[in-house]
Amino acid sequence: MTDQPTRAAPTSADVARRAGVSRATVSYVLNDSGTARISDATRARVLAAAADLGYVPHAAARSLRSGRTRMVLLPYPSTPMGPLVYGFFAALRHSLAERGYAVASFGGPHAPGGLDTARGWAELRPAALLVADGAALTPEGVDLLRRSGVGALVAFAPRPVPGVHTVLADQCRVGAAAAGRLLARGCRRLGVVVPETAAAQGLGLSRLRGAEEAAGARVERLDLACTEESAARLAARWPALGLDGVFAYNDEYAMLLMRALQDAGVDVPGRTAVVGAGDLLLGRLLRPRLTSVRIGLPDASRLAALIDELVADPGAVPTVVGELKIEVVARESA
Amino acid sequence: MTDQPTRAAPTSADVARRAGVSRATVSYVLNDSGTARISDATRARVLAAAADLGYVPHAAARSLRSGRTRMVLLPYPSTPMGPLVYGFFAALRHSLAERGYAVASFGGPHAPGGLDTARGWAELRPAALLVADGAALTPEGVDLLRRSGVGALVAFAPRPVPGVHTVLADQCRVGAAAAGRLLARGCRRLGVVVPETAAAQGLGLSRLRGAEEAAGARVERLDLACTEESAARLAARWPALGLDGVFAYNDEYAMLLMRALQDAGVDVPGRTAVVGAGDLLLGRLLRPRLTSVRIGLPDASRLAALIDELVADPGAVPTVVGELKIEVVARESA
Repeated sequence: MTDQPTRAAPTSADVARRAGVSRATVSYVLNDSGTARISDATRARVLAAAADLGYVPHAAARSLRSGRTRMVLLPYPSTPMGPLVYGFFAALRHSLAERGYAVASFGGPHAPGGLDTARGWAELRPAALLVADGAALTPEGVDLLRRSGVGALVAFAPRPVPGVHTVLADQCRVGAAAAGRLLARGCRRLGVVVPETAAAQGLGLSRLRGAEEAAGARVERLDLACTEESAARLAARWPALGLDGVFAYNDEYAMLLMRALQDAGVDVPGRTAVVGAGDLLLGRLLRPRLTSVRIGLPDASRLAALIDELVADPGAVPTVVGELKIEVVARESA
Repeated sequence: MTDQPTRAAPTSADVARRAGVSRATVSYVLNDSGTARISDATRARVLAAAADLGYVPHAAARSLRSGRTRMVLLPYPSTPMGPLVYGFFAALRHSLAERGYAVASFGGPHAPGGLDTARGWAELRPAALLVADGAALTPEGVDLLRRSGVGALVAFAPRPVPGVHTVLADQCRVGAAAAGRLLARGCRRLGVVVPETAAAQGLGLSRLRGAEEAAGARVERLDLACTEESAARLAARWPALGLDGVFAYNDEYAMLLMRALQDAGVDVPGRTAVVGAGDLLLGRLLRPRLTSVRIGLPDASRLAALIDELVADPGAVPTVVGELKIEVVARESA
């Protein structure tokens, strides 16, 4: 089982030979299984032989023996992570590590969704899986993951995913909150920025849809690349657009657009009110100070505790386990 | 080998029973090993049985059979990733995925270095390992990783790491470049911001040391938390400090400090010149436009190609394989 043909890599057989014991004994000692009685002298001999040879057990072999890893799989989201999401994942990794889990992340920036993705995750036999883009999970994928024995299956998704513990994360609500703020201020012709980057566009379109639903009317879609040139071009069209309120997708795009508008002589908020999202520190440093939609992610340590509970009790009926907390932080720009 | 005791998880034995073939045949078909002749009819029967049962092979078993994974291990850096580093890792994951590698990241935000960490990585038997904090690698750790059969061992570190292909990433040079710019402008009393966050402090102290070496004199260390209150307190002390040039750690801290200085009536750059680092878009949106130290990371697709070569030829003599490109982008603030 451990005689894999790796270059110069010592195997448990080498350790057994050197220590003058059986491979089973080596396995008992190095994996601390505690089911067999091994004398202290033998244990010491095995440990010394392993150290001499530089032998480390193969995690895959250990996972096969136990049938299960203590691994939580946390696939990279397909959208770029801002400081908010990045900080949340860092805190979650930390909380899970404190509970004895190894957190592994997989996937490129453009990981495909669907059944093949689910199969790839199932092959790794994680104890738990947290899916950032839960909307991409198909019923077949959920079934496959469940049958492969994933204990805790948690996803962020706009709506409850059948068979999955869901944290409701409906990005439409971010756009709706921003539009609501602008309408309450008396704005009547709204624009919504949609990032041109392919990776961020899905999120941008959800926020646009939410703004449209809240406004109950057509809003102007403003495609914007994350460059000064793109912002200057949009600002040059501003008088023709006649917008008195704009939701700028997030705080970074709001900073970019506000600078371009101010350089083009458009008064913010006098002529056009601007709302960002994310409630980053930079919004408070702008002048006028940026009004922003705060997006409260779940408490990372509570989510880690939930994952731990579900691993212990994988039969728990899937339910909604949390929700983004969306609120407008009103400052000067809108 | 696949009879692991997972709840309701179908095993290759179940597939074999259903298809009426041996487990070896199931293994040949599902792992596409190509060494055994299997009739098309048998192959179809096995695939149908696996699909009916929702069986997926266990990646750990496959990795044991082959002795090696196509996994590149990319442990999370212990310092927080800014947009620059995050973008680089995203591009690298993408390039490696195109070459058929699965990229896995492990470790919490405060993963310890040293031998235990190296042992944990070795247990996973990755084909390649890219260490962001190469300075934490000990000779014993490198030896262990080499002996466990890691093909490509690449690290970012300030100095060449023996036994490891090193990308030279000396953060002192960032501080030295910033101080050099301020001195060339005629500044004589320099300050350097060091972030109060524990995770960012190591990086901050390296940049401070570089500035001190370039200045050939004592520079004022300015501890700053990433809050408006901390920046306001520092700005209130400004007249007493008598500094005519400051390196603000990075562009985000520069934005924070510049706002506080301007609110306190300190003219930038008239009374104090300010330099950031990272050359982010936000620096170009500030007024005055921010002078910044650009940190050029290696080309991600070339690094992926190098890793691929090293996996194929793991005996290649470890050498320096790249270096951060450090240059000052001069704008208005310094």
